Amino acid sequence: MAEMVRVAVDAMGGDNAPGEIVKGAVETVNARDDIEVILTGRRELVDAELAKYTYAAERIRTVDCDEVIETAESPVHAISGKKNSSMVVGMNMVKRGEADAIVSAGNSGAILVGGQMVVGRIRGVERPALAPLIPTEGGVALLIDAGANVDARASHLVQFAQMGSIYMEDVVGIKQPRVAILNIGAEEEKGNALVKETYPLLQACERIHFIGSIEAREIPHGGADVIVCDGFAGNIVLKLYEGLSGTLLKKVKEGMMSSLRSKIGALLIRNALHETLKSFDASEYGGAPLLGCKGLLVKTHGSAVASDVRHSIIQCVTFKQQGINDKISAHIGCRKETADV
Amino acid sequence: MAEMVRVAVDAMGGDNAPGEIVKGAVETVNARDDIEVILTGRRELVDAELAKYTYAAERIRTVDCDEVIETAESPVHAISGKKNSSMVVGMNMVKRGEADAIVSAGNSGAILVGGQMVVGRIRGVERPALAPLIPTEGGVALLIDAGANVDARASHLVQFAQMGSIYMEDVVGIKQPRVAILNIGAEEEKGNALVKETYPLLQACERIHFIGSIEAREIPHGGADVIVCDGFAGNIVLKLYEGLSGTLLKKVKEGMMSSLRSKIGALLIRNALHETLKSFDASEYGGAPLLGCKGLLVKTHGSAVASDVRHSIIQCVTFKQQGINDKISAHIGCRKETADV
Repeated sequence: MAEMVRVAVDAMGGDNAPGEIVKGAVETVNARDDIEVILTGRRELVDAELAKYTYAAERIRTVDCDEVIETAESPVHAISGKKNSSMVVGMNMVKRGEADAIVSAGNSGAILVGGQMVVGRIRGVERPALAPLIPTEGGVALLIDAGANVDARASHLVQFAQMGSIYMEDVVGIKQPRVAILNIGAEEEKGNALVKETYPLLQACERIHFIGSIEAREIPHGGADVIVCDGFAGNIVLKLYEGLSGTLLKKVKEGMMSSLRSKIGALLIRNALHETLKSFDASEYGGAPLLGCKGLLVKTHGSAVASDVRHSIIQCVTFKQQGINDKISAHIGCRKETADV
Repeated sequence: MAEMVRVAVDAMGGDNAPGEIVKGAVETVNARDDIEVILTGRRELVDAELAKYTYAAERIRTVDCDEVIETAESPVHAISGKKNSSMVVGMNMVKRGEADAIVSAGNSGAILVGGQMVVGRIRGVERPALAPLIPTEGGVALLIDAGANVDARASHLVQFAQMGSIYMEDVVGIKQPRVAILNIGAEEEKGNALVKETYPLLQACERIHFIGSIEAREIPHGGADVIVCDGFAGNIVLKLYEGLSGTLLKKVKEGMMSSLRSKIGALLIRNALHETLKSFDASEYGGAPLLGCKGLLVKTHGSAVASDVRHSIIQCVTFKQQGINDKISAHIGCRKETADV
């Protein structure tokens, strides 16, 4: 039997907590025999949800916490002030090695802050980075950083490239992932000061397959497997993906409902269209890992439902079994002299 | 009769030059009686295209230029080296007041450089900014800057907000346009160093209707009328709009072609869908003006066809008739003490 992976799940985080979070945990242990889930949250609420299901009881347990970090709270204040919150309790379990990973749909900023302040960075990693998978025409691409470091430096971006490359190869299974830096043109001389400084460092980086700049236009076409950028630019990409997909699909639906003729047509294409567009639905790809911390933190979106939670938990298994953090630790170290230039 | 507006058109710029450019010029003078077009380019090529059409000959003339700036050329080198190129000749006409504006589908970087080096800035404007209209659910929004200033400062962004606001109100016709700064969260304390520095300056700016931060997710929903950002971030938004729209529509088409049933459905909805999605087609909105120069420069996309050229030329008329540059000059001056903080 494979090694058991223990995942702490913040049962109180997100818009649909604790119902969908608990349901996702139950679905996971029913589908897989190599995962143990520790649900952190108000015991009476969590256990009431658990009571609705049949599951392998020895692989889900509840840890009672009487505090909850709210979405609108200041991240630093929340993490340092609410020691007994479902999020901080889970993070401390990761820190102490009682859990391999934590999944949360709660306050995004608090997850990023907690990754640094509670769980801690891997030795040699300057900044952890948020690395969601985003859909492309032919598959997915890893966007790193998607919002953890809004004023990143060149040496940070080099580490993002290294960490992203390892993740894409060993967790997602893309051999020799193509790494590109997000830029405003394909030519080497283009870019802002940060990109111009980072570009030659990435070229000099031996353990990644650097293919140069990528324009935002080429991201959905699948122009690269790992897209390196600072957290401000990455967050724009991530959020615009969300907003624009939503708006375009709304427009398509409006178009289909505009006449009787098109309404009939809409009935005929509905299933086919749904299947195709599902492949472009970011929530299918699990949560976003915060790479570079001593354990794994996975941030799933605030409106996560059970299937999102399940995907996020299962992602932690591959991460653990592939020894991603050991690899990050080894690779980051080896190029530090370049990264620090 | 309205005052005649004289627009220089770079007949050699873009993938479809000179054919589509000349066709667009002819369509314009045939549709409007208040525009004169000056086509700059190789006379024999331009005149051969002109010979295909019937038009008011006194309102189109050709200025012969024997050089062409290629797409791949270094902008600074091209502008300073090719004095007799179709682009530089047109820019010099604007500088000398022989034309009110220039429209080009050529080398984007060269247009930005030429705006500063050849045409020159309006007194008081620190940096001209590229300001395309992008489609939203309910209409359009102005994105400023979309790529002219990749390392902008806070004082630049304040001027972008002022120039964008004037353009949106007087050219596009949106009363009291809502101005927002592109950010990674709606809260005031969020953002990178540039956004944090700019935010209070925009709050203190009296002549604009500043509504705070906008996340990229809200842009397609129409969350603001003027979106202020540095050229690096703006270029990402613009290019991702292009790439993602293309990919999603391709996915929709694939979905509709995946079974016989859905193919029949596709036939029924085709027209309705086409009409709806046309409203989301950026090329319908004309070219992007470079705001802040002494004359108007309009950059239309490299693959521009006649209708894009026509829209771009017509845009220049409103710009001129509304006296936009006089207004920019007046407004920019009045807040300079704040902008320079």
